[in-house]
Amino acid sequence: MPNPFSERLTNACIERKSFLVVGLDPRLNMLPEELITKSRTLFGNTLEGAAHAIWQFNRHLIDSLADIVPAVKPQVAFYEQLGLHGMKAFYDTVAYAKSKGLLVIVDAKRNDIGPVATCYAEAFLGEVELWNGEKATPCGADALTINPFLGGDSIKPFIDTAHIYGAGLFILVKTSNMGGKDLQDLNTASGKLYERVGSLVDIWGNEDRDARGYSSVGAVVGATFPKEANRLRSIMKNSIFLVPGFGAQGAGAEDVVPCFNTDGLGAIVNSSRDVIFAFHKTSAPFGNAARSKAR
Amino acid sequence: MPNPFSERLTNACIERKSFLVVGLDPRLNMLPEELITKSRTLFGNTLEGAAHAIWQFNRHLIDSLADIVPAVKPQVAFYEQLGLHGMKAFYDTVAYAKSKGLLVIVDAKRNDIGPVATCYAEAFLGEVELWNGEKATPCGADALTINPFLGGDSIKPFIDTAHIYGAGLFILVKTSNMGGKDLQDLNTASGKLYERVGSLVDIWGNEDRDARGYSSVGAVVGATFPKEANRLRSIMKNSIFLVPGFGAQGAGAEDVVPCFNTDGLGAIVNSSRDVIFAFHKTSAPFGNAARSKAR
Repeated sequence: MPNPFSERLTNACIERKSFLVVGLDPRLNMLPEELITKSRTLFGNTLEGAAHAIWQFNRHLIDSLADIVPAVKPQVAFYEQLGLHGMKAFYDTVAYAKSKGLLVIVDAKRNDIGPVATCYAEAFLGEVELWNGEKATPCGADALTINPFLGGDSIKPFIDTAHIYGAGLFILVKTSNMGGKDLQDLNTASGKLYERVGSLVDIWGNEDRDARGYSSVGAVVGATFPKEANRLRSIMKNSIFLVPGFGAQGAGAEDVVPCFNTDGLGAIVNSSRDVIFAFHKTSAPFGNAARSKAR
Repeated sequence: MPNPFSERLTNACIERKSFLVVGLDPRLNMLPEELITKSRTLFGNTLEGAAHAIWQFNRHLIDSLADIVPAVKPQVAFYEQLGLHGMKAFYDTVAYAKSKGLLVIVDAKRNDIGPVATCYAEAFLGEVELWNGEKATPCGADALTINPFLGGDSIKPFIDTAHIYGAGLFILVKTSNMGGKDLQDLNTASGKLYERVGSLVDIWGNEDRDARGYSSVGAVVGATFPKEANRLRSIMKNSIFLVPGFGAQGAGAEDVVPCFNTDGLGAIVNSSRDVIFAFHKTSAPFGNAARSKAR
């Protein structure tokens, strides 16, 4: 078993002096012109061509970022959008990022009832058992985002599987979008719904903590609501926060501060568009522009 | 634009005198021995071999069921579990079921913030825009299950996309698992959380109803909680319920009754294991056993 995810992530952040996770969210209409032209020449205007372009884009970004950031976070929707070819680009991206020493957090926000949750957990974080007891690794990512709406018996299979493989989870607690309030901010007997989810995440993660006291059961907490993040920090002292909303979604540097603990650890901040599409605002090649921005 | 999903689904149920949706959830360890043997001979103990076996299984099931049930529901987790090869089996299954006249409800329980929700909606239900305005269809399913935890601005892109393509949605309201209670049964100022979600589904679906009064914005309501289903039926009069929990999960025929409206319509009942693995309890070939059980 590898070291716990929480430990590997914190070590990587300290080594690279960075708490930035770069979102690999390759929007087709924002890709560099030279990649589009090349892919269209090779494959025409097809899903295969589009998938080829995003894979070339990711590969070059990973080369440009691997030694300065701890982790990347591919958002699966951008790959599923290109069907089977897109999924090939997704799996190739995960494997390549890992081969370059990056931690890979798959942003898939999956969940389902227990036995199906086990399938999802094995699909992204573990191994699947074939026949005669032999096993294979379908994806092999380091961590996965998951959705808590189906409750504790849908979360437990993820925790159990993550534990076996030294992998991590980030459970949606308070999302960065305005509409997140519709359900997450409802008052319940246990406080706001997001506070209730935060308390559950704290309980789920407390059994299994690393040497620094952190759990591999983390939480997604949007930087766009710093007051709520501050409250959640006090509820989930041992969870690592994955913090979206910084940059293009409107939150600034001061807004992410409440997501960190007083030890200066306990959070990683996601940025996608601002980094990977930084070249739109400079004359530098896209890899160099992303590297400068990430620094 | 095709006719609205709600109309196509109800027509198919009436024509085939069946409200059964068969879950295509191919658990590897329950597949017919002859398919396992053949796939292992061809591909060894590999993800490719496993994916080949589930595709052969699905193809034969679809042939055996296409004229007697209105819809099939592949659960994506069972395909993602086999990585890229599994996803090929998934897309092939969707295309084949459609070619045989079945409606395809993809059980993926996806969601994310707005722009990403659009990607997921296009990925499963619509077209994606490539370059120069050309479009491609990555999956082309008829309906998709989605998760409401991220709120209204994460649901709207699905509704807008589904509307364009005459597709349908089933939003998780009250799931069939016991742990669903952890969040869904919390009391809020608007009733239980599941009642609040039900009210929102009713609002989201009310703008766009078919000639019978049904909306293509449906709800997932587990048969395992018939009292709650009865309450939800009164809240969401115009939504079609996708009802899991029947059979292997413990609910009986009387438990699904509250999910239907007084017109005898408004619900479809899912069964997976009991139908597709019916051959384990008979000496009939698996396709025939599934057909007998579905009848």
